[in-house]
Amino acid sequence: MPKIAVTGKGGVGKTSFASLLAYVLVEQGHKVYAIDADPNATLAQALGFPPDLAAQITPIVEMADLIEERTGARPGEYGRMFKLNPRVDDIPSRFSVEYRNVHLLQMGTVRGAGAGCACPENAMLKTLVTYLLLRERETVILDMVAGLEHLGRGTASAVDVMFAMVEPGTRSVQTVWAIHELAQGLGIDKFCVVGNKVRHERDEAFIRERLDGLSIVGMLPYSDQAIEADIQNKALIDVAPEMATKTRQIVAAVL
Amino acid sequence: MPKIAVTGKGGVGKTSFASLLAYVLVEQGHKVYAIDADPNATLAQALGFPPDLAAQITPIVEMADLIEERTGARPGEYGRMFKLNPRVDDIPSRFSVEYRNVHLLQMGTVRGAGAGCACPENAMLKTLVTYLLLRERETVILDMVAGLEHLGRGTASAVDVMFAMVEPGTRSVQTVWAIHELAQGLGIDKFCVVGNKVRHERDEAFIRERLDGLSIVGMLPYSDQAIEADIQNKALIDVAPEMATKTRQIVAAVL
Repeated sequence: MPKIAVTGKGGVGKTSFASLLAYVLVEQGHKVYAIDADPNATLAQALGFPPDLAAQITPIVEMADLIEERTGARPGEYGRMFKLNPRVDDIPSRFSVEYRNVHLLQMGTVRGAGAGCACPENAMLKTLVTYLLLRERETVILDMVAGLEHLGRGTASAVDVMFAMVEPGTRSVQTVWAIHELAQGLGIDKFCVVGNKVRHERDEAFIRERLDGLSIVGMLPYSDQAIEADIQNKALIDVAPEMATKTRQIVAAVL
Repeated sequence: MPKIAVTGKGGVGKTSFASLLAYVLVEQGHKVYAIDADPNATLAQALGFPPDLAAQITPIVEMADLIEERTGARPGEYGRMFKLNPRVDDIPSRFSVEYRNVHLLQMGTVRGAGAGCACPENAMLKTLVTYLLLRERETVILDMVAGLEHLGRGTASAVDVMFAMVEPGTRSVQTVWAIHELAQGLGIDKFCVVGNKVRHERDEAFIRERLDGLSIVGMLPYSDQAIEADIQNKALIDVAPEMATKTRQIVAAVL
């Protein structure tokens, strides 16, 4: 079952696209684990999780006792030795929250004020991502930041497709090139660009011109529906049928 | 001279607002140091730096030799001891790039593939931010990520104003509350919300309702000009006069 990473500059729509992918793959019978690896986690909202259910999610990095137990180091401490391969096999089932057949895990939210180094947490998160990427039966969608911090060289080889989101603008274009370089360094072969917030042909032409040489697999329209979904805390797939259709086309073409 | 931090969810417009603030304060005679503390650095583009000048900027975290010299630890290594207060006083003048009277420093760009822990870099960056925040004669604008990682309890007390950007949508609202909690934990007194991408009265009402209790100091309009500035790599202040005017009003009211 495919292991998918979605990345891009903040605000470009990677979490929105990850939520669309998750429900499209559920429609097709996949067992989907969605991993929110953005420290500023909002995938639960994009998936339309009811607030009371979203409130039940404990980000992995906040489980200080668990991290200490498994790594031998207290989060926030550094300079101590810790185990580099903590045991994580029970985490996905114990700590994921399920809604409409999507199993959601949050890696870590915004760090606490004055928090120290995140070494023990990162060792744990990296091991967890590796473990999830190596499980055969589940489809994994990793919503992650542009720095690809959760992927190591070993982990990345398990990623079947990396989607990089872009919007019309030099800043998100520049981020896609930076991610592409990192992805190449990590040995990720299938690197697919998805345009978002495309208002007209000129926007599409801009993206194609600036990312010439990369594989561009689809364009999603600028959509007031996407903004409304965010305002009303609804699942994007339910209110933006055109974006859902485009996502189905991308899945058919790429996966 | 004021020390200003701008933060918010990715893509919400914090870099755009930081660029507007920088030029508005230069207009008023300030000597401005703008610090791009977002790992996915795009402040140079928002300020309209010519591409050849922007290419000259070396992010502080990439100066491996300098970091090793000052901290005693090679970036990417961990488990080694390093000095917690490396010397940074020559860095601002040696490594900033100036354009239209704004002195720009980049803390660090997207990390290299497979890079290890960033402890030595972070110790250095934190010391550098502290140093800049303590200099009296310069105005400092810190464009930073929502986790406020570069601020420690000591550093934060030097921040005169923190602006948190928000757009119409539950996800960026949620981020503002998370930042507000962190800011309170750090003892930052003046916490000001700025709305962005406001399309109509309903958007403004949504923001006011969801952030009730916080100090909302201004609303910037949704603007195709802002998108055009990004597409054409122009300084936002030159192409979006309405946003510049609103920023001047915010500066007059808050600083």
